[in-house]
Amino acid sequence: MLRNDQRAPAQLRPLKMTPHWLATAEGSVLLELGHTRVLCAATVEQTVPSFLRNSGRGWVTAEYSMLPRATAERTPREITKGKPSGRTQEIQRLIGRSLRAVVDMEALGERTIVVDCDVLQADGGTRTAAITGGYVALGLAVKKMLEFGALQRNPLRDLVAATSAGIVNGVALLDLAYDEDSQAEVDMNIVMTGAGAFVELQATAEKLAFGDDRLAELLALGRQGVKELIAAQEKVLAS
Amino acid sequence: MLRNDQRAPAQLRPLKMTPHWLATAEGSVLLELGHTRVLCAATVEQTVPSFLRNSGRGWVTAEYSMLPRATAERTPREITKGKPSGRTQEIQRLIGRSLRAVVDMEALGERTIVVDCDVLQADGGTRTAAITGGYVALGLAVKKMLEFGALQRNPLRDLVAATSAGIVNGVALLDLAYDEDSQAEVDMNIVMTGAGAFVELQATAEKLAFGDDRLAELLALGRQGVKELIAAQEKVLAS
Amino acid sequence: MLRNDQRAPAQLRPLKMTPHWLATAEGSVLLELGHTRVLCAATVEQTVPSFLRNSGRGWVTAEYSMLPRATAERTPREITKGKPSGRTQEIQRLIGRSLRAVVDMEALGERTIVVDCDVLQADGGTRTAAITGGYVALGLAVKKMLEFGALQRNPLRDLVAATSAGIVNGVALLDLAYDEDSQAEVDMNIVMTGAGAFVELQATAEKLAFGDDRLAELLALGRQGVKELIAAQEKVLAS
Amino acid sequence: MLRNDQRAPAQLRPLKMTPHWLATAEGSVLLELGHTRVLCAATVEQTVPSFLRNSGRGWVTAEYSMLPRATAERTPREITKGKPSGRTQEIQRLIGRSLRAVVDMEALGERTIVVDCDVLQADGGTRTAAITGGYVALGLAVKKMLEFGALQRNPLRDLVAATSAGIVNGVALLDLAYDEDSQAEVDMNIVMTGAGAFVELQATAEKLAFGDDRLAELLALGRQGVKELIAAQEKVLAS
Amino acid sequence: MLRNDQRAPAQLRPLKMTPHWLATAEGSVLLELGHTRVLCAATVEQTVPSFLRNSGRGWVTAEYSMLPRATAERTPREITKGKPSGRTQEIQRLIGRSLRAVVDMEALGERTIVVDCDVLQADGGTRTAAITGGYVALGLAVKKMLEFGALQRNPLRDLVAATSAGIVNGVALLDLAYDEDSQAEVDMNIVMTGAGAFVELQATAEKLAFGDDRLAELLALGRQGVKELIAAQEKVLAS
Amino acid sequence: MLRNDQRAPAQLRPLKMTPHWLATAEGSVLLELGHTRVLCAATVEQTVPSFLRNSGRGWVTAEYSMLPRATAERTPREITKGKPSGRTQEIQRLIGRSLRAVVDMEALGERTIVVDCDVLQADGGTRTAAITGGYVALGLAVKKMLEFGALQRNPLRDLVAATSAGIVNGVALLDLAYDEDSQAEVDMNIVMTGAGAFVELQATAEKLAFGDDRLAELLALGRQGVKELIAAQEKVLAS
Repeated sequence: MLRNDQRAPAQLRPLKMTPHWLATAEGSVLLELGHTRVLCAATVEQTVPSFLRNSGRGWVTAEYSMLPRATAERTPREITKGKPSGRTQEIQRLIGRSLRAVVDMEALGERTIVVDCDVLQADGGTRTAAITGGYVALGLAVKKMLEFGALQRNPLRDLVAATSAGIVNGVALLDLAYDEDSQAEVDMNIVMTGAGAFVELQATAEKLAFGDDRLAELLALGRQGVKELIAAQEKVLAS
Repeated sequence: MLRNDQRAPAQLRPLKMTPHWLATAEGSVLLELGHTRVLCAATVEQTVPSFLRNSGRGWVTAEYSMLPRATAERTPREITKGKPSGRTQEIQRLIGRSLRAVVDMEALGERTIVVDCDVLQADGGTRTAAITGGYVALGLAVKKMLEFGALQRNPLRDLVAATSAGIVNGVALLDLAYDEDSQAEVDMNIVMTGAGAFVELQATAEKLAFGDDRLAELLALGRQGVKELIAAQEKVLAS
Repeated sequence: MLRNDQRAPAQLRPLKMTPHWLATAEGSVLLELGHTRVLCAATVEQTVPSFLRNSGRGWVTAEYSMLPRATAERTPREITKGKPSGRTQEIQRLIGRSLRAVVDMEALGERTIVVDCDVLQADGGTRTAAITGGYVALGLAVKKMLEFGALQRNPLRDLVAATSAGIVNGVALLDLAYDEDSQAEVDMNIVMTGAGAFVELQATAEKLAFGDDRLAELLALGRQGVKELIAAQEKVLAS
Repeated sequence: MLRNDQRAPAQLRPLKMTPHWLATAEGSVLLELGHTRVLCAATVEQTVPSFLRNSGRGWVTAEYSMLPRATAERTPREITKGKPSGRTQEIQRLIGRSLRAVVDMEALGERTIVVDCDVLQADGGTRTAAITGGYVALGLAVKKMLEFGALQRNPLRDLVAATSAGIVNGVALLDLAYDEDSQAEVDMNIVMTGAGAFVELQATAEKLAFGDDRLAELLALGRQGVKELIAAQEKVLAS
Repeated sequence: MLRNDQRAPAQLRPLKMTPHWLATAEGSVLLELGHTRVLCAATVEQTVPSFLRNSGRGWVTAEYSMLPRATAERTPREITKGKPSGRTQEIQRLIGRSLRAVVDMEALGERTIVVDCDVLQADGGTRTAAITGGYVALGLAVKKMLEFGALQRNPLRDLVAATSAGIVNGVALLDLAYDEDSQAEVDMNIVMTGAGAFVELQATAEKLAFGDDRLAELLALGRQGVKELIAAQEKVLAS
Repeated sequence: MLRNDQRAPAQLRPLKMTPHWLATAEGSVLLELGHTRVLCAATVEQTVPSFLRNSGRGWVTAEYSMLPRATAERTPREITKGKPSGRTQEIQRLIGRSLRAVVDMEALGERTIVVDCDVLQADGGTRTAAITGGYVALGLAVKKMLEFGALQRNPLRDLVAATSAGIVNGVALLDLAYDEDSQAEVDMNIVMTGAGAFVELQATAEKLAFGDDRLAELLALGRQGVKELIAAQEKVLAS
């Protein structure tokens, strides 16, 4: 069975990352994964949330949003409802947790790095793309801070990237595009470190409860996908 | 190593469910799991969300809230901020998805069942307790509808329950109490059906990324815990 | 004429107060008055509102809320509208004023006691039940503070309790249940101290304006009802 | 003892009512009571709240607001907080209830009359002044509707007016100005019909709980004050 | 062609300014321009916005609002939507900018003057009337501060006033009333100083784009109108 | 005197427009003007605002927003305050008015075209760039509708574009970049049609009131700038 875009089940969509897309941000990247385009920007702020004040420790947080015409049907701006949707907040929390998992907060010192992930065009997998691109923006900002001597040592203990996998019409697929995601029986997001350890695992039975064997299949796909993404991140950050 | 409340690592806290705690609701249960107390109530409404109108299909949704003094330190009411927190919305979505996973929406017909889960006292595990208790409230409401002939056939295809597991000080534990949860290295919520299939799996590295072996250990604990909870649900619903 | 629940016109509903219902709060009571159930919890905070800072004086405030299925028809949560209703705010202000009337704020010192009154099941009279139960929660918290030596002298100058009375079908009744309240011609709430003095009196002509004779009748009923409630409070607080 | 403005204890402040102050409204009056100035305007709308649709019955509602410089110290606009304060809502509800008490809703027919009460300058007693002036605006609008034949019969069954009374330094005073109100031991608002029956009675112990004798004293003062206000209303409405 | 109110094209509506209309405010004026009535009040606050702290410089800001029955059809209060409309905010910003243009912020010192402009009755031109009246309220407050020695020198470098002009049915008119404004092809607001220099110019093609000649015509009308308004301001401030 | 980016006073910044930047929208363009980058997208909706229902006429509206890292210092998202700022609303209204000025609403028919203008990178002049780019997105969407036969005749009567001009250090400059805008004495936005008529003119004295000569100078610069922008629009739309 071929997928709509002719990919094999275990194949990621074409990935392109343009670092420094914004002249205004400390670190930024325009990540394109198939038709999905996420603009990630890292901001270094010299303050920390109140619970960390005078702790010598830093913080990393993320914000996520989608432009109204990122989608084929226009999505009204969240500002018209006065508050971010539950979905948006859930995604922001996921990105933040994922990035924090690889940051040594003491090495970062009392600073906050805010990672903005704005989806310019959406074709499924925006939250995992935001994690993968968000890490690159974070990495570029850290690199600049190290170069300027603002940091003594690298607070990034490892890389982190994310992808999705799912069961569609009974077949396990890697990196679901929107048309696949919307009809998936099971949907999984997987966030892993460069060392291959889990940071976050979220598997949801959209239509059918699933057994251990299916879980194992999805974990294998996800693990392989993250590996390729990490390799691409390393390349961008090295350049 | 003994836990603070003398439990073995694979032991659930004492569980007590008082059905029909509310005279006002179609189905209700006061679920007590150790010190955690959640009041669950099911309401049958004769409307459905607009995307289901004239579809012949029903809907199940959930709301979750915590009383301010459910916690040892008073938590301000969310109304004072004007909107539910991201955490609350994430939990509500999880409970709703979990319950919907076992409901045959055509058998339910064009009705919505709202399951309110209000935490009266909190000692960890409130979201999984809300799923377990929410299913009982839902089951009691469905039972009453079947008795009154409002439903032709049972829309509940299976039972569903949830528990948590985690790694604390390097040891895998079932059903984390608050003091354990707050220092866990890895935290997992697991939602399963009576048939033992996964509905939802959420594992988060709170402090350390984790490998396949740890995942397997947590899955085994969770599976066993859910099994015991399902047995207790069956007993309450049969009475 | 007998009332629906067979009470005499001047008879209160059966009253049950379970102190220490919450392990988490400094003082708490589950008050049941007929089918009305209010969970009251007192929290001691070491701050005061800004207008009292450095005054040496304390403050007592109250919050009131109703669970959605406290009522026979589900009432949407106020959070869905983003703000407490006018009714809720009016009740909160009434409870707060009533409790403050018997507190010596200098003896309390620069602390705030927050009294949360959450209605778990509603059958009329929830605001007056919240005052009666709120005082008990406050009293239990003060007792604990005195025992621990956190207070030098008792800031409670007197007890305070509240009840309702009204004219239903031309007959003056004490302690209206919901079915009575909803058809009352006149509705009165009365808050009095242990010494029998008025703290608050609110009489409203729901259907018919009323004269001095009716007012006198309602005042007599209310006075007697409060007396019985005060006696019950004393018993709970002494135990 | 003389009051700051040389009034006797049982004396109202000078009252002036300018009917038709607004060319834009169906009925309007600028009411001045001492320094307190309230602009009241009645609007007739051809709709009713949903619970009255197809009932043949009408509705009367009120809105209350204060300009920021109505007070000697500027009060921030409520719009800056995004919602009316509890105090504002409580007052709006009181005005609405008071006016509705004298309206025959069947004679009014399926219409809503909105009575806007905007305080231009405040010196105590604004809520009772709003009731007294609100009734005049309502009366003028009804008069116009009767003249135009829009109403078959007069829906106003009686007049209604309101005043305050209170205990200040141990002395019972009628119609408290701001400086008196802010130091009152007991504060009472009384709303009565032209026939001398109570519509609403709210007595609050601001500093000291009070006994039956004090209540009687305040009721007598209030009754006399309302009588004078009703006479003034009749004069304005007759002109 | 005569206008509805018999004015010539280049004629302002009758202007009346009653200074000190409020006893409560540092400076106030009730400005009436035809049927348009705006109550302007200036408040002196001893603080400045955070970006001016310790700068030795002051600030002037404005708030604008309309009573619901200022208009022939009742306009719902903005508080019912929870936030000021875009129109209100745009007007507030315009008034504030216009007043600040003639204030020497160093001479004012670290204080904020808040100018409240509340429209009691509206018949077109309320924003320009608010600027003209707002300046008078500001001037009266400054006068009082100079008299009390709170200011060393006059921070008002010039006067400022505003009017509208527009093309209606092809004819250029000064000071549009509501019926003219609502059918104007081009609408212009002009804010000028006593010295005849522009502070703000806003011309909008409501129906037809317009050329240089039309612009010149409107500018001439506006210039003349402002001149007359400035003369009236000087008279009120001198009295 | 040379400008920071070496431009002559009457010179626009380098302009680049990439049409069809979004695969998801009916019409879209990424407009780059110097460092300012605005992504404009047009959406065709088959509904109109309620005041146009059954009128046979259409509507054009615009939304404007800025990504947080569009600016050199991160700007918090407006969603964190729950509502668009006054500035945002003012800009949205300006863009909408400007586009509507050249649309024949009867030719458009009962449809709404929503033009989203999202600033990805900001260096001054974002609102005028949004008008210029917004028109192109609108034009591309209309072109597609004409091609598909969804429209009988072209509803676009003319082109429309906008630019800024201002006085900086006494010199009149065209198309202000951020560093120029922030220190301008006078700031003007000018919106004109392809035929050279004014649609909107907004001139503000940021520091100094200005005379007729300065106004004439700015108008001449603006007129010339718009002419060049219109030429560029024509080229993109023709391709």
